[in-house]
Amino acid sequence: MTYADLYKNELLQEVIPFWEHYSIDTKYGGFFSCIDNQNKVFDTDKFMWLQCRQIWMFATLYDELEQNKKWLSIAEGGAEFILKYGHDGVFNWYFSLTQNGSPLIAPYNIFSYTFACLSLAKMYKITNEERYKKACLKTLEHIHQREENPKGKWNKSVEGTRPLKNFALPMILCNLYNEMGSLLPEQTKKEKATSCVNEIFDQFWDSERGIILENVTLEGQFSDTFEGRLFNPGHGLEAIWFI
Amino acid sequence: MTYADLYKNELLQEVIPFWEHYSIDTKYGGFFSCIDNQNKVFDTDKFMWLQCRQIWMFATLYDELEQNKKWLSIAEGGAEFILKYGHDGVFNWYFSLTQNGSPLIAPYNIFSYTFACLSLAKMYKITNEERYKKACLKTLEHIHQREENPKGKWNKSVEGTRPLKNFALPMILCNLYNEMGSLLPEQTKKEKATSCVNEIFDQFWDSERGIILENVTLEGQFSDTFEGRLFNPGHGLEAIWFI
Repeated sequence: MTYADLYKNELLQEVIPFWEHYSIDTKYGGFFSCIDNQNKVFDTDKFMWLQCRQIWMFATLYDELEQNKKWLSIAEGGAEFILKYGHDGVFNWYFSLTQNGSPLIAPYNIFSYTFACLSLAKMYKITNEERYKKACLKTLEHIHQREENPKGKWNKSVEGTRPLKNFALPMILCNLYNEMGSLLPEQTKKEKATSCVNEIFDQFWDSERGIILENVTLEGQFSDTFEGRLFNPGHGLEAIWFI
Repeated sequence: MTYADLYKNELLQEVIPFWEHYSIDTKYGGFFSCIDNQNKVFDTDKFMWLQCRQIWMFATLYDELEQNKKWLSIAEGGAEFILKYGHDGVFNWYFSLTQNGSPLIAPYNIFSYTFACLSLAKMYKITNEERYKKACLKTLEHIHQREENPKGKWNKSVEGTRPLKNFALPMILCNLYNEMGSLLPEQTKKEKATSCVNEIFDQFWDSERGIILENVTLEGQFSDTFEGRLFNPGHGLEAIWFI
């Protein structure tokens, strides 16, 4: 058996069936993501990161692997839920919700926005529905507005003392531009994604140590601080996948 | 050798000398708290929790064990540093500072206030200096103002969805009232500390499970959520020490 077959079997016979069987909330919509090793839901809170990634996953399976109605229906169920409950009415995306969709944690986290944007772009691609396009582009606008200070009023760093920039946002934006499909001009997507890749290699890649740093100075230099010394090999691998 | 002697020897011959020798920042004042097992300072950031606890510790050794001038001088050096750099000018206490005292992390954390209050009360007790009294009482005022919503604008919970109350604040307040010495009337201290103890036993103590919960509903009931299921045995032991 080739590795490709091995992975494909594992995905389609183990991983996807697990999520199809145990993660769908048939009562309130959306997905459960806290499931124990007896397949039992041990917590019903709904995190936007995970709702959105699951929508993206089933939409992508439908788009790229097989036009399976069940996958479409799972993706649509999730998209319905996040459009109804996941944001404050003008596409500021909460961090988490209760099972029935009441907002639990404020829209402080820009990655709730980026994952919403990714899932909506893919939903637009497979359905061509205007509401996904509108929500996706409005969310992208918020992301751009928040790029300089992603945490906004929730930012606890005192401005100016130790300005650092973080690797996670250019990394995800690189992914995002590549996933926007027809929602952005080819030229824009190419320029933006290239700029993210350059930022990663010019600024966050520490060639001396051979690692990708999570936080660097505004000049892209190593900062000998808690934040500056942080590195996360798995995060680096994730970036390579996007690049 | 009795346990009392064993602990006293360990404290006075090992623990305290370590902090006397390696933690004092003779250049900028205050204390280092990131010291590796070669006794080398590996990070110079100064966290208010730890600055204040060290001031309290040396002030308490001076107050209760021996009027050792060195201990007084260490406590005073720390108090000098926090009064100069630890707050925003009106006793809102930062979470952390750089080595030279520039504010790094905003005054979001109420425990920076409670530990400042504890150290200042003890400094007032051993020196009788008005500036400690003033700073301590102003800080206590801030703590009371923030009791209902300790994180203020940094609070990420959406109001009303899942109101819970947290064990840590009544626990520390119980300690605080007992440490205020002549700065509060005896009657006030007794009433406040008793009310904290009652809150802990009536609300956070889960008699069915035999544990102290970290978060309970406003009615003092178990909440079957991530926050509600959290318990921390060490935190419970810490509370018993205060009580």
